[in-house]
Amino acid sequence: MSNENGQCSSCGEMNEGTCGGEKCSPPPKLHPGGPSKIRNVIAVMSGKGGVGKSSVTSLMAVNLKRMGYQVGVLDADITGPSIPKMFGVKRVPPSQGLMLPAQSRTGIPIMSLNLLLEKEDEPVIWRGPMIAGAVKQFWTDVNWGELDYLLIDMPPGTGDVPLTVLQQIPVDGIVVVTSPQDLAVMVVKKAVKMAGLMEAPLLGFVQNMAYATCPKCGEKFEIFGKALEKGDILDGLPVLEVLPIDQEFTRLCDNGLVEEAPIQVFEDIPKLLKVKSQVG
Amino acid sequence: MSNENGQCSSCGEMNEGTCGGEKCSPPPKLHPGGPSKIRNVIAVMSGKGGVGKSSVTSLMAVNLKRMGYQVGVLDADITGPSIPKMFGVKRVPPSQGLMLPAQSRTGIPIMSLNLLLEKEDEPVIWRGPMIAGAVKQFWTDVNWGELDYLLIDMPPGTGDVPLTVLQQIPVDGIVVVTSPQDLAVMVVKKAVKMAGLMEAPLLGFVQNMAYATCPKCGEKFEIFGKALEKGDILDGLPVLEVLPIDQEFTRLCDNGLVEEAPIQVFEDIPKLLKVKSQVG
Repeated sequence: MSNENGQCSSCGEMNEGTCGGEKCSPPPKLHPGGPSKIRNVIAVMSGKGGVGKSSVTSLMAVNLKRMGYQVGVLDADITGPSIPKMFGVKRVPPSQGLMLPAQSRTGIPIMSLNLLLEKEDEPVIWRGPMIAGAVKQFWTDVNWGELDYLLIDMPPGTGDVPLTVLQQIPVDGIVVVTSPQDLAVMVVKKAVKMAGLMEAPLLGFVQNMAYATCPKCGEKFEIFGKALEKGDILDGLPVLEVLPIDQEFTRLCDNGLVEEAPIQVFEDIPKLLKVKSQVG
Repeated sequence: MSNENGQCSSCGEMNEGTCGGEKCSPPPKLHPGGPSKIRNVIAVMSGKGGVGKSSVTSLMAVNLKRMGYQVGVLDADITGPSIPKMFGVKRVPPSQGLMLPAQSRTGIPIMSLNLLLEKEDEPVIWRGPMIAGAVKQFWTDVNWGELDYLLIDMPPGTGDVPLTVLQQIPVDGIVVVTSPQDLAVMVVKKAVKMAGLMEAPLLGFVQNMAYATCPKCGEKFEIFGKALEKGDILDGLPVLEVLPIDQEFTRLCDNGLVEEAPIQVFEDIPKLLKVKSQVG
């Protein structure tokens, strides 16, 4: 719905609003760039920052790749991108026309704003429409090739990027990352409710930072509050994985070696998505 | 600078752009609501999510209050607000005209989007201009009374809210929160550079989650990488505090009892800001 000067009264956008509320008609789903053939899109979101969305996205990509699937990662955290550093990739290859993603050591295509910057710590001081526009371009203007799974690492919050991704990219499943702290769970529930309001399919939760291990005595302890167990049900959704704080994993991520992490998780993802094509 | 149809070609806004780049003239600083008299504004920012901006903001508020100053907290994390839960406040009092902040147990006025919602886990699905508009209103449309310090808890990223706060609210000092993980430091540097570009005064860093303590053997260990020490210099700025992961503090925050935290920090803040008025 528009007000007198053609601006949506809720989101303030001109002509076609995209606020997803009753007042705006939602915009259409977009096609991925050129010859890209993407069978499943999984969005990793949280609402809360710093609970480990990027770690979970990376671990999921690495494990799906190990199972033999073709996997790509779209880093939708435009102002705080972590994915390139975890995989040790720096720049996208030169291309004409559609952009090409960077390729990780094990052949995972990655697109991130940081791959387009001269310096990784250069800030991207943009307002929401520009940020959401960049995410859309990572979908429409990138040649992803043929992928069984494209994983989208979402920024925190329930603002422009999650809104644009859930409205305009055909997401097949959402994985919600949380930490044991009550406070995180409250903010994370906002993301769950947002997904519900937008009729996006929720696959389940990943509880991250569930426990730490003392390097001296080996004690495993719940550092941020009560840990869940894999298979538990939270808000009617299954807990897909429970992950610890793992200093060796942190070190690997800091050194761009996430693909070497000896962590086997997310075996159930293909089943959950009833994968549209089988490997081999 | 505007393009033909009156829209800034960089940020897309109409008439007066606010992107802070060369193409837009920055908007004017705003006055706080009505009779508010605010001597110092401190913004707590990070770039990275989940490093503990809200914990740091709360601890700073609690400690300045204990020193005898009048302190308020403006929660600028519109889509992921944590402050009300930490202080155990639920709703703002009814008011006519200007909004009134909620009051914590020890008399800290607090304004947060969550204080305006029926349910704390209700999502706020807004685009950037709406989100930044809410933050501006928390400054212009709230009667803050007389405060020595107003602390602004910023959301992660370098998008709409940090941009609006640094452009339109007269910030006297910025405290940047980081964690030991390299990855966090890289993203945090984006926030530091943003502050530099916008000529906002940086006071220093707080390193959060520097170490954990094993509840069994008492071993203190660096859980996310190399910890700093108070007084160290990072990127030319002092490290103001180094804070551990503290399970008791987490429990207090989850129960709305942050004001009971037996943690004495931030004694140097008034000196750093050469506080414009002395207590008593």
